[in-house]
Amino acid sequence: MTPVVSISLADLNTAKAGDFVAALSDIYEHSPWVAEAIATRRPFASIAALNDAMIAAVRAAPTEQQMKLIIEHPDLAGKAARAGSMTYSSKSEQSGAGLDQLSDFEFSEFERLNGAYRTKFGIPFIICVRRHTKSSILNQFEKRLRNDRKAEHETALEEIFHIAALRLGQRVEALERLKLDGRLTTHVLDSTSGTPGAGITVELFELSPSGERLVTSVVTNREGRTEAPLIGGRPLPIGHYELRFRVGDYFARRGVPLADPAFLDVVPIRFAVAEPEGHYHVPLVVTPWSYSTYRGS
Amino acid sequence: MTPVVSISLADLNTAKAGDFVAALSDIYEHSPWVAEAIATRRPFASIAALNDAMIAAVRAAPTEQQMKLIIEHPDLAGKAARAGSMTYSSKSEQSGAGLDQLSDFEFSEFERLNGAYRTKFGIPFIICVRRHTKSSILNQFEKRLRNDRKAEHETALEEIFHIAALRLGQRVEALERLKLDGRLTTHVLDSTSGTPGAGITVELFELSPSGERLVTSVVTNREGRTEAPLIGGRPLPIGHYELRFRVGDYFARRGVPLADPAFLDVVPIRFAVAEPEGHYHVPLVVTPWSYSTYRGS
Amino acid sequence: MTPVVSISLADLNTAKAGDFVAALSDIYEHSPWVAEAIATRRPFASIAALNDAMIAAVRAAPTEQQMKLIIEHPDLAGKAARAGSMTYSSKSEQSGAGLDQLSDFEFSEFERLNGAYRTKFGIPFIICVRRHTKSSILNQFEKRLRNDRKAEHETALEEIFHIAALRLGQRVEALERLKLDGRLTTHVLDSTSGTPGAGITVELFELSPSGERLVTSVVTNREGRTEAPLIGGRPLPIGHYELRFRVGDYFARRGVPLADPAFLDVVPIRFAVAEPEGHYHVPLVVTPWSYSTYRGS
Amino acid sequence: MTPVVSISLADLNTAKAGDFVAALSDIYEHSPWVAEAIATRRPFASIAALNDAMIAAVRAAPTEQQMKLIIEHPDLAGKAARAGSMTYSSKSEQSGAGLDQLSDFEFSEFERLNGAYRTKFGIPFIICVRRHTKSSILNQFEKRLRNDRKAEHETALEEIFHIAALRLGQRVEALERLKLDGRLTTHVLDSTSGTPGAGITVELFELSPSGERLVTSVVTNREGRTEAPLIGGRPLPIGHYELRFRVGDYFARRGVPLADPAFLDVVPIRFAVAEPEGHYHVPLVVTPWSYSTYRGS
Repeated sequence: MTPVVSISLADLNTAKAGDFVAALSDIYEHSPWVAEAIATRRPFASIAALNDAMIAAVRAAPTEQQMKLIIEHPDLAGKAARAGSMTYSSKSEQSGAGLDQLSDFEFSEFERLNGAYRTKFGIPFIICVRRHTKSSILNQFEKRLRNDRKAEHETALEEIFHIAALRLGQRVEALERLKLDGRLTTHVLDSTSGTPGAGITVELFELSPSGERLVTSVVTNREGRTEAPLIGGRPLPIGHYELRFRVGDYFARRGVPLADPAFLDVVPIRFAVAEPEGHYHVPLVVTPWSYSTYRGS
Repeated sequence: MTPVVSISLADLNTAKAGDFVAALSDIYEHSPWVAEAIATRRPFASIAALNDAMIAAVRAAPTEQQMKLIIEHPDLAGKAARAGSMTYSSKSEQSGAGLDQLSDFEFSEFERLNGAYRTKFGIPFIICVRRHTKSSILNQFEKRLRNDRKAEHETALEEIFHIAALRLGQRVEALERLKLDGRLTTHVLDSTSGTPGAGITVELFELSPSGERLVTSVVTNREGRTEAPLIGGRPLPIGHYELRFRVGDYFARRGVPLADPAFLDVVPIRFAVAEPEGHYHVPLVVTPWSYSTYRGS
Repeated sequence: MTPVVSISLADLNTAKAGDFVAALSDIYEHSPWVAEAIATRRPFASIAALNDAMIAAVRAAPTEQQMKLIIEHPDLAGKAARAGSMTYSSKSEQSGAGLDQLSDFEFSEFERLNGAYRTKFGIPFIICVRRHTKSSILNQFEKRLRNDRKAEHETALEEIFHIAALRLGQRVEALERLKLDGRLTTHVLDSTSGTPGAGITVELFELSPSGERLVTSVVTNREGRTEAPLIGGRPLPIGHYELRFRVGDYFARRGVPLADPAFLDVVPIRFAVAEPEGHYHVPLVVTPWSYSTYRGS
Repeated sequence: MTPVVSISLADLNTAKAGDFVAALSDIYEHSPWVAEAIATRRPFASIAALNDAMIAAVRAAPTEQQMKLIIEHPDLAGKAARAGSMTYSSKSEQSGAGLDQLSDFEFSEFERLNGAYRTKFGIPFIICVRRHTKSSILNQFEKRLRNDRKAEHETALEEIFHIAALRLGQRVEALERLKLDGRLTTHVLDSTSGTPGAGITVELFELSPSGERLVTSVVTNREGRTEAPLIGGRPLPIGHYELRFRVGDYFARRGVPLADPAFLDVVPIRFAVAEPEGHYHVPLVVTPWSYSTYRGS
């Protein structure tokens, strides 16, 4: 299946019913019936209204149909992931969290958990991968394995709604976008001079039990900020991170007297993201001998 | 040679000259002449006065004798370190910085630098190992290789004075001790409740290019402090360190509402020690969403 | 009545019963019966045990006798305070919070509240003045006027126990003192240089609705601390305070580049004391462009 | 003279020379010659270019004409200020710093300094009042009285350029405005919950030796910010300020456990503005037991 190009909300609202359904047939995995159920409810005033209507249609469906929707989803990182039977959307989503780059150990761990999950609940483990890191997916596996069947049916639906909303946001152009993005930003203040900390290299790492992965490396601008969010335009993957600020180089360049070696060189700030749609502002207020940070917004 | 037991300053002051020299013969490596030169200057009012007198005797000696003293010192981590020709004191000192646990790569790096040093200056590389970590010794090698012969002769003497003072402090018992010790301490304040952060696990790591080494792991007491300094009773080895405070567990135990995963779990503070005889107080003032630190005293 | 000199616990333990009672007859206002009740319980292992025994004797007394003890206390700042009928102890205690320096307005306010209190409860308003400031006494008046009779009977006893303990602590010498003192301390850290802020003038003011009163003005020493606690050796009076740190002068003297006028000149920290027996450490971590403070311990 | 309404840069560029001069005749006090000198240099690409051209015309004028321009300015707060001979612009500007509300003492102080200034330099004391508070004007008086004649001639011109630029900015409409405004903003972060401090009353006071003046009182919004800058759309008057944050009420409303009385109730932050065209961001990061602030941007 080839990628579907985007379509405007206005066009969706005026399209023939068949074209409307075709355009949204894979928002819910292999389930054009969701779009069919709401085709007569057009026009939708906003993409949020369209999204809500699709969710309501799934909620209103009989339990067996919901179960069928759930079962249509591929096993996460399982055999399906390597055989080409996923929808195009599923494929590109699952590469996001690094699920296409599993080590042998991780792959067998995923398979083990996936098997245990399927044995206990009889359904595939569904999770909105773009809202997670590899390690938070493993954490979710372990937590959700402790659920009962009913709670897990509900959790699976909620994850499907997250997945569908993200797909919808990419498919449909509208004036007001769905609020699905989070933002991670930073800001360096040099309290020695009361000015922004400009020209400081900041690295963002994703941390996991198996090691760390460089997400991005940027340099602060004249305002002590980064030109773009460290992560933006997408949900913030739930997980553990570390920011590293190269303040030793900065102070040395400015001729600030330093100890040898400097008391502070690379300042690490380790934190976790729990709300993928939140704004995490993690500033650094720093001198050669002190610093503070906090979750701002 | 067997370890020499300690002796009191009072006994040194009243001992026969020969016994005085025997007791202090190896304070300066293979150089009993230093003690001989000051035996008639007794009594010494304090161990500091004794130490100063020995330093003055070395300074007053002819250049050739100073050079002989320098040359008597073993090659750092070189062949001598593995053959048993060092004084007992040298041996136990050099194990301090982990020089007896060099990887093959490090060993060859030390040998290479040692060779380059000896070639350029014609003397062994002398450094007071107890004031350094393995990585700061490598840094010193590289810095000092850029010195000229005269500056390096002087630096070698200064390092010998550090070494001798530490030996003297261990050998001689006196009311007032030589001030050779530094101290690394910490303190956790929980700003959510305005109380000390009690029962928090704090780990101290020494960082080096080749990895990290756990120095100590302690738990804060009811005052939010550790029962003893993290490093104390000795010079603080120059080098890079990281403190890690397990604040996530602490706040969870106290029932403070946290995100899932908690925004802050392990708080790392990375810093360097530049003054082995200094007091480094590195406190943490923390909430589940913010923290600050500074070099206190 | 003349001031009673102090007496040792050892002497109290071995004194004749009559002398024991005489020495402690005014620990509880006009109530030698409290000392009488415990004379046969000697020896007391500590002053804390003696204090506990006196409290237990009051608790064990019939309600009418407790009431009589309560009624023996002078009206706070009322006519008795100006007529000489108080015990010597009461007089010197009430001058502590500035109750002997009431403005006409405050005097009439105290009289009004005292009258309302006596009308509602039929007893004088009893409060341990040394644990309060003038304004917290007024606050207590208003709060306690809302109590019922039973709660207020209990509160009066508790205040009497505070008063008696402080008197006992002054009267009796013992190895281990009663823990009745609080402490207010500070510490200035200069984060520009990573050193203690030495030579900084710090003023402590007590704040009240009618204005502010300078409690003490000190200069930080080489450690950035004050030689003695700002308040110590006594309970900390409950109330509102402001510390003022003259950091502008300090940075100017050190030649740190400053704006004109300096961004920070006098840094005020306004806080309240709620635990008279607590340790309030209120440090300042400061640069010319930033500062932080917290309740430490 | 009546207030002149604004005119667009486009209209100025195409107006007859006489109308151009008439529109800008009082930008420089009683000195239409400045506009005359540049009428043929039109069109001006921006208001900044127009402003620069007027400054260049003054700089290019003979010293006597510059002196005449200086002398045309009214005595600050002197007789002229009460007699109606100032231009309309001068009048409304001088009311800004409270110069129309001088106490008798301040009035005589201003007159004394004004007299001393005129005696020493033979010119009126000129200062761009909108960039100052009453107390910084007094400071400037004292500083500038120590200048020599030449430095003071230059300073008077620079102040005239500030005054003229502000007048020009108000008179002429253009796409890009002159950058004459400063901004004072704040932001409250609640580190107990990691969220913005919403609904907190913040008061801004201007401090002077004679007392304090409430500038504005606002309440933080859901973002912990104020809807508009505390001072904005104008230069920040150089001077001393205090922000007061009512955090005690805020934490009490949120049900956070507090001491009685609360350790922190009103948090004052005292600071000075030195750059009228700067951005002063003065945030508060706060818990019930700690806070920090810094000059941000």
